[in-house]
Amino acid sequence: MRQDERQGAGATLGDFVATTSWANVAAQSHEAKRSILNFFSTALGSANDSAVTGALRTLSPFSGAATSAIIGRPERLDAMGAAFVNAISANLLDFDDTHLDTIIHPAAPVAAPVLALAEARGFSGQAVLASFILGVEVECRVGNAVSPGHYARGWHITSTCGVFGAAAACAWLLGLSAGQISNAIGIAASQSAGIVENLPSAAKNVSIGNAARNGLFAALLAAEGYSASARAIEGPLGWARAMGDEPDIGRLTRGLGRTWEIAKNTYKPYPAGIVFHAVIDASFNLRAKLNRRIDDIASITVQGSALLLARGDRPVHNERDARVSIHHCAACALLLGAAGVTEFADATVFRPDMVSLRQKVRAVLDASLPDGAARVTIQLTSGETFSAIVMAAKGSLADPLSDRDIEAKLRDCARLGGTDWDIDRIIDDVWRLEQLADVSSLMRARG
Amino acid sequence: MRQDERQGAGATLGDFVATTSWANVAAQSHEAKRSILNFFSTALGSANDSAVTGALRTLSPFSGAATSAIIGRPERLDAMGAAFVNAISANLLDFDDTHLDTIIHPAAPVAAPVLALAEARGFSGQAVLASFILGVEVECRVGNAVSPGHYARGWHITSTCGVFGAAAACAWLLGLSAGQISNAIGIAASQSAGIVENLPSAAKNVSIGNAARNGLFAALLAAEGYSASARAIEGPLGWARAMGDEPDIGRLTRGLGRTWEIAKNTYKPYPAGIVFHAVIDASFNLRAKLNRRIDDIASITVQGSALLLARGDRPVHNERDARVSIHHCAACALLLGAAGVTEFADATVFRPDMVSLRQKVRAVLDASLPDGAARVTIQLTSGETFSAIVMAAKGSLADPLSDRDIEAKLRDCARLGGTDWDIDRIIDDVWRLEQLADVSSLMRARG
Repeated sequence: MRQDERQGAGATLGDFVATTSWANVAAQSHEAKRSILNFFSTALGSANDSAVTGALRTLSPFSGAATSAIIGRPERLDAMGAAFVNAISANLLDFDDTHLDTIIHPAAPVAAPVLALAEARGFSGQAVLASFILGVEVECRVGNAVSPGHYARGWHITSTCGVFGAAAACAWLLGLSAGQISNAIGIAASQSAGIVENLPSAAKNVSIGNAARNGLFAALLAAEGYSASARAIEGPLGWARAMGDEPDIGRLTRGLGRTWEIAKNTYKPYPAGIVFHAVIDASFNLRAKLNRRIDDIASITVQGSALLLARGDRPVHNERDARVSIHHCAACALLLGAAGVTEFADATVFRPDMVSLRQKVRAVLDASLPDGAARVTIQLTSGETFSAIVMAAKGSLADPLSDRDIEAKLRDCARLGGTDWDIDRIIDDVWRLEQLADVSSLMRARG
Repeated sequence: MRQDERQGAGATLGDFVATTSWANVAAQSHEAKRSILNFFSTALGSANDSAVTGALRTLSPFSGAATSAIIGRPERLDAMGAAFVNAISANLLDFDDTHLDTIIHPAAPVAAPVLALAEARGFSGQAVLASFILGVEVECRVGNAVSPGHYARGWHITSTCGVFGAAAACAWLLGLSAGQISNAIGIAASQSAGIVENLPSAAKNVSIGNAARNGLFAALLAAEGYSASARAIEGPLGWARAMGDEPDIGRLTRGLGRTWEIAKNTYKPYPAGIVFHAVIDASFNLRAKLNRRIDDIASITVQGSALLLARGDRPVHNERDARVSIHHCAACALLLGAAGVTEFADATVFRPDMVSLRQKVRAVLDASLPDGAARVTIQLTSGETFSAIVMAAKGSLADPLSDRDIEAKLRDCARLGGTDWDIDRIIDDVWRLEQLADVSSLMRARG
């Protein structure tokens, strides 16, 4: 579809979403299922986290008829409340899927409202897949159009762009017209929020949850006749300019329906910020060479891009810090030979041997390394040095997780999350999602 | 209170809010009552607007126990839903109160959640007044710190700053600790949204409603232990920088508790953008001189600042446009000698004589005029010209509405809004608000 210069980007996106059917997206459905399985991994892994419990307790008195599941738990809320809480649990571990061009974690803000709404209305698995693919498309295209400046300025891009994807996906699910979908996307622009400064705190959860909840809200309001400016995204006083960047409107709409952003989705093997994964992989390589001489380490130097240092050269006070710490990522991979949920839990973070090893890590800029790469160099007290460089971490597009890896991740997360939901059944249901006549059969503890 | 450089602005605000009691704010309570009366005017005036009905219909299935009134209507919602809807109706007519330094309309996003929460919990009128004054204080100080660049960049400042005020006010009402209040304010930073491009559409209502609803939500989450970054507002990747401006932290916290922003609140005599009021007053002056020779008008020239032209030099397609149109403001004042809710309604906007007179209006920059001033010059077909200049419009700080004017405005609005709520009783209750043991007696149709 070509961008018609005479109409706004929202109208072009609205036309595209409204005219897309299952036949147009069926070829993307396997990647969508991988994304949704990964979404369940992370949601189940955090189902009993205090942030989830706190959100649930806060929202319970403010819920209408409890139509929708809280994933991994017995409680239920209305679809807007469930969208909020499930988006939080899906993002809490920093173990999301990642669209590498933008560092958007696509699934949390889109799958949460799609599943909550579909469950409430008894929609099919095929409808869930199609709307999810479309939501990810809109979310990531909006992100593409303002990257990389948007994140660098302080916008938490998963939150700020997620609301657009959630709005588009829910609007499609509700069967809205092209004009209404365009309005839903424009209403999303007036709800887009979330800042990087708040990432190490629970306030991050709020912007992720709102992206999911408010995208659904935008679609419901558009269905009631609420409108938006035709140029809410790209207008002179619109979203993109207010947010600090003129959008590249071409990227927002070029090749719509021919290329698919979901095809670029990746899944993390480690519950740490995606830019730290190369640090972990390089440290694994060195661990093999070290042959258990951990006590002989004099210093560990991690080199990477400015992005790596900006994100991860920071003190570690808790689990959240650890997941975005160069120091912790290198130390746990070297000391423990693992970097799963356990290795980023408080119990590990405060182990004396971890604290001690983290103190030996220094982060140093190597501007020649691209984002996502890292070089780790260890010097032993003997003076001996080892070095390893990783250009494409495990889980990247060049080295993706297999379907079996994703299933294994789901099982690990679910075990750690302490849920009683039937994991085999979730895995089976998601792999055959287009055959489910009513997705509510997926959204419960047992089939 | 001095800004402690070692702590974040949120902590300074949190300490201030937590330690403020009725005795500290009693002197501001008369102005607070004027603001609250004006809030009821606008909320009652729009109680039956389709945007209010649409929001109510959308939210009804998503409401918990209906603890809180929808002002001017029989329906009720939970406190978050009522905060959303009442903030919309209070802002819909562009007839709000205005903090002129920032062009924030303080009451809608703060009074709506304060009243909804106080009604739900049975809090006193004194608590409503104190929390409202504190909320306006935080809202306007955040706005001061980023003005004038913030609005100019495309941020709808009432929405983006309103959420901070709502959070602070609700946190005080809930009796939160200084640390929790600071967290509520920091959580608000991750929910701050709303763009100027969407102002002529219903998407504007969504950001206003969200500011009210999400400020209350931030306070409820902070009460549950949700935290935020200590420098959510002013940090390097925080709200202010992401939004495009380094804040002037001094303005955020200097003189806290000694000066009060509520004292600078003003109330509109006309339901149009505040910058157009001088255009209306100047046109009234000219109407007197014209002596009904409307048909002899050849041209009308309106001169004002760049702000006036940026806001108001636009085509008029509907009621919303008319309220921010230089052309309509001049034309209705000249033709009808009035500029109330009726003169901005669609029935008036599309009158052939109004359309014809609007077409004779030209807007011209006069950079020597300050914001809020206007010069109107009329040339008759005879060549005769009349000119009038207004530097301080009626309703400005220099020429404020009297208490009786505000009561009259409330009666006018309520009549136009078609509500059956007892207006005398509302006026009586608000003037003696600090004596109400339970504010729920105010939040109903009859006493």
